Amino acid sequence: MLKKNKLTERKIIDIIVNLQDKMKNNPLPFGDDVAAIRIGRGQLAVMKCDMLVAKTDIPKGMNPWQTSRKAVVSVISDLAAKGVQPMGILISLGMPGKISENYVRQIGGGINAAAREYATHVIGGDTNESTDLTIDVSAFGICKERELIRRDTAKVGDIVMVTGAFGLPALGLKIIKKNMEISKKLKEKAIKAVFMPKARLSEGLTLAKNHLINSSIDSSDGLAWSLYELSKSSNVGFQINKIPIHREVREFAMENNLDPIELAFYGGEEYELVITQKPALYEKSKKKIRTLIPIGHVTENSGKIILKFKNKYRDIEPRGYEHHSNNI
Amino acid sequence: MLKKNKLTERKIIDIIVNLQDKMKNNPLPFGDDVAAIRIGRGQLAVMKCDMLVAKTDIPKGMNPWQTSRKAVVSVISDLAAKGVQPMGILISLGMPGKISENYVRQIGGGINAAAREYATHVIGGDTNESTDLTIDVSAFGICKERELIRRDTAKVGDIVMVTGAFGLPALGLKIIKKNMEISKKLKEKAIKAVFMPKARLSEGLTLAKNHLINSSIDSSDGLAWSLYELSKSSNVGFQINKIPIHREVREFAMENNLDPIELAFYGGEEYELVITQKPALYEKSKKKIRTLIPIGHVTENSGKIILKFKNKYRDIEPRGYEHHSNNI
Repeated sequence: MLKKNKLTERKIIDIIVNLQDKMKNNPLPFGDDVAAIRIGRGQLAVMKCDMLVAKTDIPKGMNPWQTSRKAVVSVISDLAAKGVQPMGILISLGMPGKISENYVRQIGGGINAAAREYATHVIGGDTNESTDLTIDVSAFGICKERELIRRDTAKVGDIVMVTGAFGLPALGLKIIKKNMEISKKLKEKAIKAVFMPKARLSEGLTLAKNHLINSSIDSSDGLAWSLYELSKSSNVGFQINKIPIHREVREFAMENNLDPIELAFYGGEEYELVITQKPALYEKSKKKIRTLIPIGHVTENSGKIILKFKNKYRDIEPRGYEHHSNNI
Repeated sequence: MLKKNKLTERKIIDIIVNLQDKMKNNPLPFGDDVAAIRIGRGQLAVMKCDMLVAKTDIPKGMNPWQTSRKAVVSVISDLAAKGVQPMGILISLGMPGKISENYVRQIGGGINAAAREYATHVIGGDTNESTDLTIDVSAFGICKERELIRRDTAKVGDIVMVTGAFGLPALGLKIIKKNMEISKKLKEKAIKAVFMPKARLSEGLTLAKNHLINSSIDSSDGLAWSLYELSKSSNVGFQINKIPIHREVREFAMENNLDPIELAFYGGEEYELVITQKPALYEKSKKKIRTLIPIGHVTENSGKIILKFKNKYRDIEPRGYEHHSNNI
């Protein structure tokens, strides 16, 4: 929720971006999942930074190891969406003044665990004292310019797919905030989805390497927001005819009078990739990535996301996931 | 000053670095001014991140424009010490919840001003809400591996030089903390040295391009600490026979019973480069960089920094500059 008189995150970004002199012939505009610079021979250096501030980004109950691991996973997810293997990672840490050695060990261990999960290494960093635990992660990789998967290249007629079902993290966040009657098994699964997210790096790399994607974005601000960003960048629209919701979450939602559309589209903390591709490439893609779910197709209706559900049409409004505090 | 029971920054870094699996054949060890990765054809991607937390890093009276500009200058200084032109910069911002549009404009403007001063561009970033103003800057450049200036390559017999006189920022910080009787002109000059630092990028690039340096480090933690880090990395020592102190600061120190050694060696917030080179290259270097000051030579005495001053020898102890709070 927005507080009165408070600048929104979007407004802040607009002000800052507008004040920057832009690099000429930048291979990728501001606002894609990553930044990129040409380094010769058709290659790009691809970079991404993402700051996690525990106060606003971390739900109750996550330990420091999970927190620092997740900070790294978030950044790797952005490179995954572009089909780029991270070659190295830098970490800037701000930590409160009074912390134990065990706390520092957890932070350091979580960072390394995430790096190793995705076959990369921490190569440098910086530490500071700050009021909030703050973990800024920068990831670096290189790729051929013509193989970088962009946000602005979705084509009318493409099918839209996601790399897996949504909704578990949304349910997990609900459970963390409010006690619910729920089976132990589903509760654990949902909370694990929040505390131990996975970046879809191998999926992104496989699809990119085999030239199976037209455009892609990650879904950390929620599926609705990702579709909206993708549509804006590519000047297209989407018709969605399947709600890619995790089976158990859908069942739980129906039993408990929760809205499955809300859980699937506006959940946030999701790390699936949202991808568009030529329909003819679907069978080949599905053979390589078993978890792919086709959810609709690209339309000419620029900026418009329509859900066709039980033969009714409904607009999916471009609402982003809201963080744990009131900051956005 | 260290608080009781508080982990030092050094201890925190050791714990975290020791927990990281190290990249094999890393071209540059952890702890040099920058991190580097081989990207083929004898080239390195060079990266550096540095987090500024206003609460601890920014003295009283600096405005948001100066603060964000300085955050960028600090990182460029590290690339300058390695002889690497920054190609692009990423910015992660943490800002308090209640800020004005003017504040955001100042932050954005200061970032762009610094980038343009050093012929680079901001190419991406991230914004967040945090208690402290937090600016994490990541800079990226490429260079030939054999042309990267390292910390671990000072040679016994090299002369030691700095790119300019020290002490103005140290005096500036004293003035900011405590009212002093001082001429208006010197006061302004000293405070400007703190609020508007300059990275020695053109100096670093010129010396590196002409193969005039054996080793180099920047001096943001103070001259004594830089000499100590350089000596440790290169397994050498230094004999210093000249205190590179700004003339007016020396005069002010003498009149006011301040220790010029303290001001020159332990000041911090300095952005001169500390360089070693073959003595035979000095004349050529001095012609290119008029501000160079030779201050001594490299000895075999590993880790030992000796100042010969008025025919007396005195150890320069490896004491780092202490930030504005008690955090280190």
